[in-house]
Order: sequence, then structure tokens, then C-alpha cells
Amino acid sequence: MFQHRDHMGIENGHLTIGGVDAVALAEKFGTPLYVTDESRIRANYRRFKGAFPDADIYYAAKANYNLAILNILALEGAGADVFSDGELFCALKAEISPDKILFNGNSKTDAELEMAVREGIRVSVDSLDELQTLLKIAEVQRTEVEIAFRVNPDVSPKTHPKIATGLKTSKFGIPHAEVISVYKEALALRNIKPVGIHCHIGSQILDVAPFADATRKMMELVDQVNRIGVELKFVDLGGGLGVPYKPGEKAPSPSELADAILPVFEECTKSLGIAPKLILEPGRYIVADSTILLARVNTVKRAYKNFVGIDAGFNLLLRPVMYDAYHNIVIANKADQSPSDTYSVVGPICESGDVLASDRRLPKVEKGDLIAILDVGAYGFSMSSQYNGRPRCAETLVCDGRAKIIRKSESYDDLLRRQVIPSRLK
Amino acid sequence: MFQHRDHMGIENGHLTIGGVDAVALAEKFGTPLYVTDESRIRANYRRFKGAFPDADIYYAAKANYNLAILNILALEGAGADVFSDGELFCALKAEISPDKILFNGNSKTDAELEMAVREGIRVSVDSLDELQTLLKIAEVQRTEVEIAFRVNPDVSPKTHPKIATGLKTSKFGIPHAEVISVYKEALALRNIKPVGIHCHIGSQILDVAPFADATRKMMELVDQVNRIGVELKFVDLGGGLGVPYKPGEKAPSPSELADAILPVFEECTKSLGIAPKLILEPGRYIVADSTILLARVNTVKRAYKNFVGIDAGFNLLLRPVMYDAYHNIVIANKADQSPSDTYSVVGPICESGDVLASDRRLPKVEKGDLIAILDVGAYGFSMSSQYNGRPRCAETLVCDGRAKIIRKSESYDDLLRRQVIPSRLK
Repeated sequence: MFQHRDHMGIENGHLTIGGVDAVALAEKFGTPLYVTDESRIRANYRRFKGAFPDADIYYAAKANYNLAILNILALEGAGADVFSDGELFCALKAEISPDKILFNGNSKTDAELEMAVREGIRVSVDSLDELQTLLKIAEVQRTEVEIAFRVNPDVSPKTHPKIATGLKTSKFGIPHAEVISVYKEALALRNIKPVGIHCHIGSQILDVAPFADATRKMMELVDQVNRIGVELKFVDLGGGLGVPYKPGEKAPSPSELADAILPVFEECTKSLGIAPKLILEPGRYIVADSTILLARVNTVKRAYKNFVGIDAGFNLLLRPVMYDAYHNIVIANKADQSPSDTYSVVGPICESGDVLASDRRLPKVEKGDLIAILDVGAYGFSMSSQYNGRPRCAETLVCDGRAKIIRKSESYDDLLRRQVIPSRLK
Repeated sequence: MFQHRDHMGIENGHLTIGGVDAVALAEKFGTPLYVTDESRIRANYRRFKGAFPDADIYYAAKANYNLAILNILALEGAGADVFSDGELFCALKAEISPDKILFNGNSKTDAELEMAVREGIRVSVDSLDELQTLLKIAEVQRTEVEIAFRVNPDVSPKTHPKIATGLKTSKFGIPHAEVISVYKEALALRNIKPVGIHCHIGSQILDVAPFADATRKMMELVDQVNRIGVELKFVDLGGGLGVPYKPGEKAPSPSELADAILPVFEECTKSLGIAPKLILEPGRYIVADSTILLARVNTVKRAYKNFVGIDAGFNLLLRPVMYDAYHNIVIANKADQSPSDTYSVVGPICESGDVLASDRRLPKVEKGDLIAILDVGAYGFSMSSQYNGRPRCAETLVCDGRAKIIRKSESYDDLLRRQVIPSRLK
């Protein structure tokens, strides 16, 4: 159950995370509750950075942009891959260095581009339309903007179609065949300076081969781009390294990823006599396994299946219904007990799809038990909503055996926040 | 394009809603922007109520629980189907009469049941576990609680599996075969009074036959339940009537629904000599077509497909990626122009699945154009999130040719709201 998870364990029959008793956490802070182990984030970051000592690591803020977590990564020296003005705002608030932030996005507003230029943030440009907009903004602000182009490498990453971002049919990036011509166009512009090249092939990828494919395709483009006079300061190969969600699932380590792509990268740059910085954008790898979601059992119903109804649903964890994602389940107060029956763990949302775990072997489950859903640090709280009128839950951070609130739970009033009732309806 | 939508039109080439120019709305309030036509909600409600003059209509708050909208429906005389303490809070705030609210849910917390009992709200009980919890709460509060049981009728509604709620495999309700025994159990309890029976077979159902099937199954149970001495005050047949999202799609009218179920209901109650109130729980039918989402075109990219990048994605409208849902698209500032090319309309979210409309024939689209996504009043804003660091947008209500804000747009600070940074991380 706890393979790869040396920050978790069992004490007195209770699940622990970062040395803290999950049952005690739920009693102290209530449920549902997100619990993140700080040391695990630091360890994941260092493991990744250790595999790529010469690269810059731009954490993909979309995975989890809680400010405490961004602050931890800023302290570790991470940069950030941001995908919106809001993520840029948070990254700057966390004091991530502006020269280690790349503003990505397939559909940026003018206001977002203005903010990026104003803050001196490099922009990964996704279309010619965007290049023209950016040029006008740079002219108005009388400044020079450093850019990369987001390349669509047409590589199949063998992941869920909703998160395969490097297929030619995807909405992202400049088609491979047009890449050289857009760099030529950018080179001719006074206030635009192409200094990078960028791709991203997808998310939750469990095989290094597609990364190696993409690197080869990108290095061919680096060669061509270099030839037309672009002085590349960086090559950003994106993120997407998968993590093992299922028991027995194997995911490549950062070292294995490095073995697959560094030789290709280094051979090419050496033969060209250039020294661009390598940038990687891990998100899930850094935070996924750092976090659990604790939820209380409201009801156990023996119907066509055994349903365990808990107090968290897809309002707080969208991945199972959205991507058919698998998350390990532990009965936190019975963590040392053997499975005795098969259960489906369901949330309180009024949709049949609100099933967090189907047909799992678990110890006997009773009302009042505490369910821990593992590996929810990435795309967990960051995708949460107030659907079905449910205020969002608290987030806590565990460090040195103590837990602190990093986001207070919402109240009923937060459901009505910013609402205004026209007087005639009152 | 505007079939069934007599509250929308075209003036001077611009889309109008409730007589108001959508282009002017976007200029005044900014984009993205939800725009709801009040008169359409009232008309939809009255059409539904008109088809069931003797029934009580409990609006399914989950579809859209903005307080202004709940207030409109309260003024129309609607009750509410609520699925959480938060929805109950909002319904009471809108002054919907407590005796016209049913608290539904497959996994209610003790706190939710305590609130329902305290407020004198009837509860639709989903399991024996819940019945036991409710009994304890009623005893503590020294009161009697009126309940229904949610029955799983095992009816296939031919809709998207994520929203088919009456299949025997779904998490909802008491299995058909156990219904009589749970009523017997409830009859024997001092503080519990079974007064209703409840089912719900799914959502977005475009055929009345499954409703007729469910009604027949329910009336058989009514007969049996009546025989064991339950004095039924109400029979709640749920909601789920579909609306036509696609061009040419046909959906049954409330009258057609009434023709399918009222004779079955009335024949049974007459032959039994009982007069329970019929309750129906429409949500989507009342609000779906009342609302559009306006979004600005950031970029048009000719790649493998023609991609139109707008400033709203699945952060604001989850239905397309979640249910492969179809929504009509209109270029609001070119509403009188003929299609000239095929486009896919995509949002700014960093996932390939963030496609709002695939391969649509549209007039020539350019940066700066205004896209209207139609029929987003149900399960639109109510499922929204701050994913990718995007503050949620404003909502407006159009009435008598004027638009008013009913929810102000969020700011960057709202992304950090309720967050607390441990001092050592600052």
C-alpha cells in the first residue's frame, strides 16, 4: 500500500503522514481535510533537481498553487511554469524569481500578456495571432520581450486523451512544419527576441520513450532554429512525468528520465557549440504523493454493491470522475487491518459518476470510519469547486511532526460571496 | 439556431438576450460573463407548473443556486430539492418555504441531518444507516421528523452514464426489493414519520417512456406502502426532463411529461382512495436555456484544425469536457453572418480536453470577436472552479431590458482567500 511512500506509515493502527496521526488530524481540524507533507515535497523536488543538476526546474503551478506550497518550492530554488495571470500573481507573491518564470498558455488575454511584459516575464508564444498581440504590447510598453515558441511536436504520450497535449490534433503549440517560419518572423521584429523553444507532450506519462522522441524532435528544431540565427538561451522540454497511483504501477524515476533525454540534449548542444539552459516543468511529480484527503464515512449501504458514502466527492477531487483516475484508499483508523469485503467509495454529489473508488478490497467499513485518499497533491484541491452547495474544505501542512492550517475551510457565506441581489427580488 | 429560444434574437447583427445587446453587455461588464434572462426562468417555471397544476414544483437547486435565481423561483412559488447543508442554507436565505423543501442526498453528514431536523425540513432517507442516524438526532432534538425513502427504481433513462441515477448499480436509493421492509422499520420508530416516497432516475432525459416506467414502478410501491399503513402525504418523482441542446434536437415538453405520468399517478391514487401531493424536481428545464456565457476571442490559430482560443474554459463550463456535452455557439457580434469555415472553440486551460465546441461551422472568426455559448444556465457556474489560477467571472441578470450584476467577478486575492502561510515559510 505504501510503496514509494516513505513519508507515510502506520502507528497504533492509524495511518500517519509526516509522522502525524491522520485520525488525530481529522479530529482536530474536521473533515474533509487535505493534508500535505512538506518534507515530501522538498524530497521530491530535490530528487528531480538531483537528476538534472544543470537544468532549471520550473514547477507547474497548475498542479497545486497553494501559496504555502509555492513558498516551499521558492525556498528550494524552483522556478515556475504559469498558465494564467492568476498563477503568475501567486508565483510572484511566493517570491519566485521573475527570471525563472515562463508564461505559458494557448489562449492568453491581452491583459495577461500586458502583465507578463510589465513584470518582465518570458512568454511562450502559442500562435502568430499571439505574436502580433505581444508585439503591440511590447511597443506600447517600449520594451523588449523575450519569448519562446510552444512547439507541437506531434508525439503520442500514451496517457489519458484529455491530458495528451502534444498530439497534432491538440490545441497546443505551433505545428511542427511551421516552426522555422515563425522564428524567422519573430527575428525580424524589433521588440521581440526569440530566446527559447518549448514543448510539452502531456501529463501522467509512465514511459520515458515519448520524452526521448520529443527531445529528438526538439533538438532537430534547435539545430534548424540555431542555423537561422536564433541565439537560444533555453530549451524547455515541459513536464509530464507520471507517478504510480495504482498498487504495483511502475513510473520512471527522474534519473531514468534524465538518462533518456540528457544524452540527446547534450550531444546536440555540444555539436552545435551552444549552451542553452535546459528547463523542465514537473508538477505532478513534485506534489502528487505529498498529500492525502481525509473524509469521514457518513453511511455504509448494502445495495447492488456495498457503497461507502463519505463527506468528500468530486467537488473536492475531480480526477476519478474526470479521468477515470485511480487513487489508493486506506481506512485511516483501521490501517493495520486486512481486507474483508469489497466496497465502492462514493461522495455526496448528486451524480452517479461521483464514485471515488470502485470495488476496492477494504477492512470492514462502518459509519464514522476515516477514509484517506492517497496521492491527491496534484490536481486535487486546485480543481475543486463549490458544486452542490458545498463550501471547500481546509488544507493543512505537516512539518516536523506538527500540522498547520494553510487554508481555512469555507463557510456557507462563501457560497454567496460577491453575490448581489437586485432590490426588487429581495 | 434560436429554436425554442424566443427570449433571444438578433439586432443590428448582434445577439440579444432578453432584449439586451450581448456585445454591449460584454463591453460594460467585461468577459467572461454569465448572462441570465429572468423572464425566461419565470416562463419556464410557469410552463412546467402549468402542466402540473396540482403538483408542487421543487426546483433542483444544484442546477444553479445563485441567490438571485433562487429568489426569482421563491417569488414564483417554487419549493426546493436541496442536496447539502449549503444548498439548504441558500434555499432558506431565498425564503423558500421550509415545508416545500426536501433534503436529498446519498451521503449526508450528521451535521447536515441535524440542520435539517432543526429547521423542520423533510428528509429523503437513502439508507438504513441514515435512518438510524436520523432517529438519534430526532431523539436528541425531541422532535418528530417527516421522511421519505429514496427508492432505486432500476430504470434505465438513456442518458449519459454519469447522470443516470436510477440504475440498480447507481449509488442512490434503497434497492427496490427492500423498500417495504424499510418503511415497516420506519413505521415502528417513535420520532420518525414516513410520509413520502421519492425517486429520481437521472438527468437530461429526452424521452418520456422512462418517466412513465418509473411512475408505474413507484405507484406499485405506493400501493404496497399504503397497505402496510403508511399515510403518504407526497410522492416525489424527481426531475430529469431534458432540454434540446443540439440543433434539431427534440425534448419532451412538460405537457408531454404530464401526459405520460399523470394518468398513472391519478389512476393509482384514486383507486387507493388517497390524495398524496405529487412533487417534481426540475432543475435543468427551469434554468438551462435562460443563460449564455460570453467569452472573448484571444487568438485564432490555423493548425491541424482551426482553433479559436477564448477566455473561458472548463474552469467556467465543465459540461463539454465532463459529459461530452454539446452547446450551441454564436458569434455574438456577427450573429447575422453565414458560416464560412469550420472551427474548434477552445478554452485557456492547460488540458487538451478543454474544448468547448468541436468542428463547428461559424462565420469567419477573428481576434476580439465575442463568442456566446448558449444554454449554460444549468450546471454551468454551479460547477465552476478556480483551476489554472483563474478567478471566477461575473454573473448578470437581464430584466426589462436592463442588466444587473448578480455576482461580481473574483480578483486575484480571491485565489488566496482563507490561505494562511506558516511564518517560517514567509
